[in-house]
Amino acid sequence: MNNFMDKDFLLDTKSAKHLFHDFAENMPICDYHCHLSPKEIYENEQPNDISQLWLSGDHYKWRAMRSCGVDEKYCTGDATPKEKFIKFGETLGWCIGNPLYHWAHIELQRYFSIDTPLSGKTAEDIYERANKAIAEGDFRPQSLIERSNVKYVCTTDDPIDDLKYHKLLAEQDLAFKVLPSFRPDKALNINLDGFSDYIEALGESAEIKIKHFDDVIAALCKRADYFDSVGCKVSDQAFDYVPYKEADKDELDKIFKKAMKGERPKQKDTDRYRTAVMLELGKKYAELGWAMEIHIGAMRNNNTTMFNKLGADVGFDSVGDCEIAQPLSQFLNALNVDGNLPKTILFNLNDKDNTVLATMLGNFQSSETAGKIQFGPAWWFLDTMDGMTAQMKSLGNLGVLGKFVGMETDSRSFTSYGRHEYFRRIMCRLLGRWVEDGWYANDDEMLEKIIKGVCYDNAVKYFKF
Amino acid sequence: MNNFMDKDFLLDTKSAKHLFHDFAENMPICDYHCHLSPKEIYENEQPNDISQLWLSGDHYKWRAMRSCGVDEKYCTGDATPKEKFIKFGETLGWCIGNPLYHWAHIELQRYFSIDTPLSGKTAEDIYERANKAIAEGDFRPQSLIERSNVKYVCTTDDPIDDLKYHKLLAEQDLAFKVLPSFRPDKALNINLDGFSDYIEALGESAEIKIKHFDDVIAALCKRADYFDSVGCKVSDQAFDYVPYKEADKDELDKIFKKAMKGERPKQKDTDRYRTAVMLELGKKYAELGWAMEIHIGAMRNNNTTMFNKLGADVGFDSVGDCEIAQPLSQFLNALNVDGNLPKTILFNLNDKDNTVLATMLGNFQSSETAGKIQFGPAWWFLDTMDGMTAQMKSLGNLGVLGKFVGMETDSRSFTSYGRHEYFRRIMCRLLGRWVEDGWYANDDEMLEKIIKGVCYDNAVKYFKF
Amino acid sequence: MNNFMDKDFLLDTKSAKHLFHDFAENMPICDYHCHLSPKEIYENEQPNDISQLWLSGDHYKWRAMRSCGVDEKYCTGDATPKEKFIKFGETLGWCIGNPLYHWAHIELQRYFSIDTPLSGKTAEDIYERANKAIAEGDFRPQSLIERSNVKYVCTTDDPIDDLKYHKLLAEQDLAFKVLPSFRPDKALNINLDGFSDYIEALGESAEIKIKHFDDVIAALCKRADYFDSVGCKVSDQAFDYVPYKEADKDELDKIFKKAMKGERPKQKDTDRYRTAVMLELGKKYAELGWAMEIHIGAMRNNNTTMFNKLGADVGFDSVGDCEIAQPLSQFLNALNVDGNLPKTILFNLNDKDNTVLATMLGNFQSSETAGKIQFGPAWWFLDTMDGMTAQMKSLGNLGVLGKFVGMETDSRSFTSYGRHEYFRRIMCRLLGRWVEDGWYANDDEMLEKIIKGVCYDNAVKYFKF
Repeated sequence: MNNFMDKDFLLDTKSAKHLFHDFAENMPICDYHCHLSPKEIYENEQPNDISQLWLSGDHYKWRAMRSCGVDEKYCTGDATPKEKFIKFGETLGWCIGNPLYHWAHIELQRYFSIDTPLSGKTAEDIYERANKAIAEGDFRPQSLIERSNVKYVCTTDDPIDDLKYHKLLAEQDLAFKVLPSFRPDKALNINLDGFSDYIEALGESAEIKIKHFDDVIAALCKRADYFDSVGCKVSDQAFDYVPYKEADKDELDKIFKKAMKGERPKQKDTDRYRTAVMLELGKKYAELGWAMEIHIGAMRNNNTTMFNKLGADVGFDSVGDCEIAQPLSQFLNALNVDGNLPKTILFNLNDKDNTVLATMLGNFQSSETAGKIQFGPAWWFLDTMDGMTAQMKSLGNLGVLGKFVGMETDSRSFTSYGRHEYFRRIMCRLLGRWVEDGWYANDDEMLEKIIKGVCYDNAVKYFKF
Repeated sequence: MNNFMDKDFLLDTKSAKHLFHDFAENMPICDYHCHLSPKEIYENEQPNDISQLWLSGDHYKWRAMRSCGVDEKYCTGDATPKEKFIKFGETLGWCIGNPLYHWAHIELQRYFSIDTPLSGKTAEDIYERANKAIAEGDFRPQSLIERSNVKYVCTTDDPIDDLKYHKLLAEQDLAFKVLPSFRPDKALNINLDGFSDYIEALGESAEIKIKHFDDVIAALCKRADYFDSVGCKVSDQAFDYVPYKEADKDELDKIFKKAMKGERPKQKDTDRYRTAVMLELGKKYAELGWAMEIHIGAMRNNNTTMFNKLGADVGFDSVGDCEIAQPLSQFLNALNVDGNLPKTILFNLNDKDNTVLATMLGNFQSSETAGKIQFGPAWWFLDTMDGMTAQMKSLGNLGVLGKFVGMETDSRSFTSYGRHEYFRRIMCRLLGRWVEDGWYANDDEMLEKIIKGVCYDNAVKYFKF
Repeated sequence: MNNFMDKDFLLDTKSAKHLFHDFAENMPICDYHCHLSPKEIYENEQPNDISQLWLSGDHYKWRAMRSCGVDEKYCTGDATPKEKFIKFGETLGWCIGNPLYHWAHIELQRYFSIDTPLSGKTAEDIYERANKAIAEGDFRPQSLIERSNVKYVCTTDDPIDDLKYHKLLAEQDLAFKVLPSFRPDKALNINLDGFSDYIEALGESAEIKIKHFDDVIAALCKRADYFDSVGCKVSDQAFDYVPYKEADKDELDKIFKKAMKGERPKQKDTDRYRTAVMLELGKKYAELGWAMEIHIGAMRNNNTTMFNKLGADVGFDSVGDCEIAQPLSQFLNALNVDGNLPKTILFNLNDKDNTVLATMLGNFQSSETAGKIQFGPAWWFLDTMDGMTAQMKSLGNLGVLGKFVGMETDSRSFTSYGRHEYFRRIMCRLLGRWVEDGWYANDDEMLEKIIKGVCYDNAVKYFKF
């Protein structure tokens, strides 16, 4: 029996150990998509205790607790930090097979030097030891990022954001860069409450009076230029499904004006509007040399009761199953035909779509850059041993794994960099097995390039950091 | 090379052997969903031969035989019992990789003490030996159930059933309980022949004159109360796809009345009717503290020729591929918003839906009970090594495997309890591997709770047996 | 560590080695579906160099190169043969996990006796050695086919083809037969440019004046009779999605006549026309005793820019994700109800459909022949270690693997027969593991029948070659 999660965790062959320890382990991290708060990074405050660090904003942990029948009081409610941690510890013992179990223990080991498995029995002891480590050590955001060997952090920002904290951080002498990403979801969500207010705010931030559809585009492009000036290299959009419906300018103007009057558009018109905005944004991204990330397939806010109590992003989202192949192909083709297709990273939340995405890439590659169209790493619910392995196998089978830009955390937590380690171990396990079994040449020079490439080098080259 | 299906069948690590033999093997069985006949259990007749036991009602075996080009005469036709068994034996030899191969040999070993692999060569010999065992032993239903260490059997019953045999069985001094389950499919199938006749029969059984939509609900609720009084704890519904379409009472009345006049409703109206009935039934189930099972994705009676000859449930069903995420979320949310969501078990027949279901759970968990919303075990076509492993990995990755209510047979056969053994071996193989590889702490206390929980304890607690 | 792709490549157990080397390895090949050119086979010309053999028509290789950022000049453009090969060699090194990597090395080993792994470092040396082998050896199509132990080659031919080369080849004394397959896609594609011209050409070739829908059927049936007279046993059709919409003769006539006038039909009418043609063709195939192959799920020509430059089948296709279960069931049932269902092989390009197809078979099996309805081998994008394993597991779990007709190349390349070896190794790995682990009886007689059956015997029997 192997030791519990020791230095060779997940590394089941000699080749896997070699690839990880000699090539992957010490590579820096390029976290090209996350939800860390630039304000929190800038303010750089020491957490009070491990509950604040772990349980104050982590919907993964809350979901697990709720699945064990734990009362909301211990998740988002007013229980004490210690009570919350104990409930989480009890929960974790039941989470056999869950990545949370591995993430938690990687974090305990790396940041707290605690090797004890966490469960109901050990929760109180670990709570004390972890808090002692916090009391005696530096657990401020900048320190955690630096200790994790992170070189680039791309946050997720609204086009109207003034990027104040990014600018302040840029003035500091840090071992890493914090760059903004452009996420125009609110300008796309013409069907949701608050759209017209948002458009007004967008107009103000761009200093453009938005009356027509074209003004929306002009305002977004102006904000994109501003983001670019602050170092942005990445845009991100989230689609529950991929829309593709063509419309002419007159139709778009009508749809837009109705929405601005508070009329909720039909799905068909929402799709037309979104398609048109995305075609213009794609063109802008291409012009700026940015990468366009598209996250597909989250079905959000399924529980109305809890949404009304707690709002969004608190653990009531799940995975959708819409057909995506045809509209996605049409969208990318429409950009490509006009020479406007930017570098693009496609992420799916439903693993049934792996084959669709991994083959979609090949339709639009070009000599502009290696792997211009990328299959994003397994994300959110798929950020698991099985999900990551399946994504890498799909990409290996159907594309060129050696040109993959690799992992990002997509996380809101400062200790989540262990997920890069998790990813690297899984990658080295997979590739190590292939080498060990004689499926790929034992060519250390190529293997080093591939491993270091996927860990870090490919991303830095791809995004032009 | 391992011995053929010996005591360590499927158990490939020391940990797996330990988990199975020390924790799982001797746990009782809670078969919370099956299609056994309470009448047959009550009448408790000794079978004539293994063909009657194995081949008189098993569509799995018929399908395999037909796939080998065996004539229908040997499946549902008038060939002799021996001829049928020989044809089945010949067939089984070709079924490498099929769970039927494993089920058959587990049953031969456990119930007949026959270790010989069954194929064309051995079929005649095994036929004689099995029949000798039957002639000399007790193969009556109650004996088979008791020998299999079953404590609870939940049959599948129509709301108009008088549950006579359940009551008679309750009066006997048996080592197990036979409880009814409420399956209102016929009251939901407003689009099928025989609906109006069924509604009439429902009215009679409930002693309610059914004229309006509300009367259907009243009758069903009255029958649910009756089922509850006879010990029912579970309802079950089968959906080819999940409907969700809202409608008001007037519309529902119109739809219902048209159907009662023999007019077949459009799909949209069928969906509206079903949605409304299910919302009312869900509320009733919640009130009674029942669990609501939803089996999604069977596409039934695909072969009209054979349906006209033999009727339903004889091996001409397969797996559908409709989108399910959005309507399922809407349905569960609609119940939840009104505080009417019962304990719910979601079963999928298409493994492409594993991720959708395993993440859907987390949207609606509550402190009411651990794992209030469950991901049902791999079922029917998915009741295989690969299907069960995939379901447990999905649940492990995306939910809390330790709170899983575990296996049921969904079977029409009295020797099918071997499928629980099969499930347990597969579970212990999977979890044993994780422990062996150091992916989960070697914490025997937690492991015992998890294994015994999934085998039996969780279900008994969940259903409140 | 295993040697790189040596004689036991992929064979990880003693049983696997035994099954492959003793049963599978020396079986002949029945390549019942490919895209080889009968003209090229007949003309039998020696290639100039390995670039002509490997890179002049292989969209798999071009896609991989484009994914590495290689300029089109080196794919389909005017770079020198050597430049192209070097670029491909550089590309291949990055293709860890891609079947191309395995196919290329199997071909280098078997046809060129070159054991060196191909990458940027070795590309120039291998280019010289391979060309020396070509210069000194016989690499003409007929020789490559014969050396590969192929007995039957079924090409893919348009109904209007005169099959001149098939007839010429039939007159030669070859070790293998080259038979035509009937692929009526152009007669089905009523929605594409060129339909009316094609129908005119079809009329000429059938010597029927095509004015009505019925004339289309008459012409196709006449051509099918002609194909039959030249040895055809197989038809093939490619569907992006499966259409099933009923229509009466009047409607069909209207749809057809409009299309002949150059009016593009709506999707609904396209579906009606295709359904009607397929129902008639299915009947004809049944009458002729042919097998009907249906390839489902390719989404073609996604990149308009490249389509305008290079045309079809050059590497800009990917995988679709339409729902297929219901229309496919309806189509097969409609044929079956009328006694017109031919032997049928169902192929999917999206692995999410494995369960749907593998269970669909069982709905329509009959005593006409073993495995009358077949689940076709993993194809095109799925022709990978993972794709083939998943297809065989699905078929094993849900059907009868022992009656499988096995592999075809679907290829345009004369050295692609290594894919049969790849398939056989993967099959022996899978079945060998099951035997080794005691999951299937160690019954060498049955195993030999199963392995040799899937390699060759089942197909020859099934197609009645």
